[in-house]
Amino acid sequence: MAAERALAMATCTAPVNIAVIKYWGKRDTDLILPINSSLSVTLHQDQLKTTTTAAASRDFTEDRLWLNGKEVDVGHPRVQACLREVRRLARKRRGGSEDTAALSLSYKIHIASENNFPTAAGLASSAAGYACLVSALARLYGVEEELSEVARQGSGSACRSMFGGFVQWQRGERPDGTDSLALQVAPETHWPELRVLVLVVSGEKKPMGSTVGMQTSVETSPLLKHRAEVVVPERLAQMMRHIRERDFEGFGQLAMRDSNQFHATCLDTFPPIFYLTDLSRHIIALAHRYNAHHGHTKVAYTFDAGPNAVIFALADTVAEFVEVVRRSFPPATNGDQFVRGLPVGSAALSEELVAAVVTEPVPGAVQYILHTKPGPGPQLVDDPSQHLLGADGLPRSRA
Amino acid sequence: MAAERALAMATCTAPVNIAVIKYWGKRDTDLILPINSSLSVTLHQDQLKTTTTAAASRDFTEDRLWLNGKEVDVGHPRVQACLREVRRLARKRRGGSEDTAALSLSYKIHIASENNFPTAAGLASSAAGYACLVSALARLYGVEEELSEVARQGSGSACRSMFGGFVQWQRGERPDGTDSLALQVAPETHWPELRVLVLVVSGEKKPMGSTVGMQTSVETSPLLKHRAEVVVPERLAQMMRHIRERDFEGFGQLAMRDSNQFHATCLDTFPPIFYLTDLSRHIIALAHRYNAHHGHTKVAYTFDAGPNAVIFALADTVAEFVEVVRRSFPPATNGDQFVRGLPVGSAALSEELVAAVVTEPVPGAVQYILHTKPGPGPQLVDDPSQHLLGADGLPRSRA
Repeated sequence: MAAERALAMATCTAPVNIAVIKYWGKRDTDLILPINSSLSVTLHQDQLKTTTTAAASRDFTEDRLWLNGKEVDVGHPRVQACLREVRRLARKRRGGSEDTAALSLSYKIHIASENNFPTAAGLASSAAGYACLVSALARLYGVEEELSEVARQGSGSACRSMFGGFVQWQRGERPDGTDSLALQVAPETHWPELRVLVLVVSGEKKPMGSTVGMQTSVETSPLLKHRAEVVVPERLAQMMRHIRERDFEGFGQLAMRDSNQFHATCLDTFPPIFYLTDLSRHIIALAHRYNAHHGHTKVAYTFDAGPNAVIFALADTVAEFVEVVRRSFPPATNGDQFVRGLPVGSAALSEELVAAVVTEPVPGAVQYILHTKPGPGPQLVDDPSQHLLGADGLPRSRA
Repeated sequence: MAAERALAMATCTAPVNIAVIKYWGKRDTDLILPINSSLSVTLHQDQLKTTTTAAASRDFTEDRLWLNGKEVDVGHPRVQACLREVRRLARKRRGGSEDTAALSLSYKIHIASENNFPTAAGLASSAAGYACLVSALARLYGVEEELSEVARQGSGSACRSMFGGFVQWQRGERPDGTDSLALQVAPETHWPELRVLVLVVSGEKKPMGSTVGMQTSVETSPLLKHRAEVVVPERLAQMMRHIRERDFEGFGQLAMRDSNQFHATCLDTFPPIFYLTDLSRHIIALAHRYNAHHGHTKVAYTFDAGPNAVIFALADTVAEFVEVVRRSFPPATNGDQFVRGLPVGSAALSEELVAAVVTEPVPGAVQYILHTKPGPGPQLVDDPSQHLLGADGLPRSRA
């Protein structure tokens, strides 16, 4: 079908995910095989998504790639790995013989990818990016196999963005990585009350990249080794139980502990790696004061290899906690855009709550809050008007 | 002898120590028995010391205690434990029968203690304080037994201040703590080139106390357990070898790694404990840039449960590194008092060094640098004019 046309094109979207049992460290850096399993929550694409269009044509003279409208080097080994693996699956599916009705695997391709959120916000975009690339390529070539193993070879955590809801990336045992896959633990509909607040912080420089950082940790941190071998297997089983039971107390406590332990292993790395800042400490202390005031776990923080904080809460807590954040980090200029994403109701804070929790306001430290929730995995975009590439195979000028 | 007089009095001084294999966590909170052995360097009393006078008299009507000229509650359990233990040793020495020539153990006592450094500087003063208390009491009662076990019951790390130079506090195995003692690894004369720079930082609030903090860590941090059981025994043996061989590269690297690992276990505690701040991160990064510029370990940082940084270096590095610190944290007002303690020569920095190392100056962040070196254990003060208590048993008015 596709091959009949001069130009074949497919567009997909894919989500960001936030790990609650963290991935840090590879046992194989080429295949991207992790030293421990991890578990994440897929965030809703209404708030955070990547869109990717992949096109193939006999008329294209070279492979080309555009990210957020800007052409970049398509020769990146991780991009090439994804391309190679999807083509390999397509070839396998066709049984080795070139199916004349199918798109030729020898055609050059053009790829365009865009995020619906500012890259500068430091929200993990590589997971969504590679999940989306693999999804679009698979659709282009008509591949329907398990694709998380391919996405993993683009960016480890990208494999978890291949599913919605709650997703485990199982470590696997085989040296070839064929059992290092993502599996859905529960769909996004499983826990309807769960909400996610991303606290986008201001003016931090880009910290050390995770690829370099995690390998230094593997080589130098005795605590990381113990974490991967002993602590994570226990925690993974616990976390799956908390999710199955929709136990926010257990889920939140363990998410906080695991975030802290990940950053502890960064500090145990030599030279040490710091992703948490004085502002992160403020947010962590705020969450603990808030929970202490309420006498149970109402909010849970988690931090990845960057400065933003991600907060889990149940829907009935969001309005109050957002107001606590607003009082704790009074917006500098954009008061009306301080809360973005899903609507947030208004909440009046009791004097006791303010006195107990809002102890040391830091004006302007949080740029804005993005309110979102668990969401589905990659989606096919059927509407041809949504393709990021035009009929000429080049990026459409964006409105 | 003492009992013939109406008033018996003894004065001692005792040093601060800085751990290079850290103590964090008790297996017995009453006896202060640690979960792992530790190793420290005793600092010279010319720069940092506590002086304590203990007096006993049949005329005293109650036990009294003055710290830095201010009377405080003598009933503190840790103070009482030291008093009880020294008296027990005195009684044992006298074979149970009351020796009429010896000071009566039933007399009330007065104790006065002073530091020669500002308490506000956040320099660990409890180790020096309890080591000094025990030394003065022992002298007063004529006890000459092993006293580190007694000092340990005042403040764990105080046992290490009972010796000069390089000191191990061995964990011990017995439930009664009689084998949880300090042992000198090498005297202060062993490594004459070793120097210590204390970077006293500005304006930090008092962080969580170590007594509460470490017990929370014992209860909640899986990484601390692994550190105590597996990592520290190996590191202790390594560190003793580095000290014996005066191997600064090995000593410095391991001191930095162990400081980082201690803070990692604080972060793995729930709720997490933070002693390192953005300024600590600056100092850590500065030390790594400095070492990287020179291609080997010229300076080594270590941080305890407070904001100050302690830097180890060899004597020939001090002038240059002090200048690097001065350029990195330009003194706000006290430029002439920025360096205190042992004299520091002047050093001109090469342009390459400045470009590579002094990357982001933070004016005023370091209040001053105290230059010191390893020193001896507790000392008896022979000169009666140095007693902190007068003939009336009350604190002398300080000049």
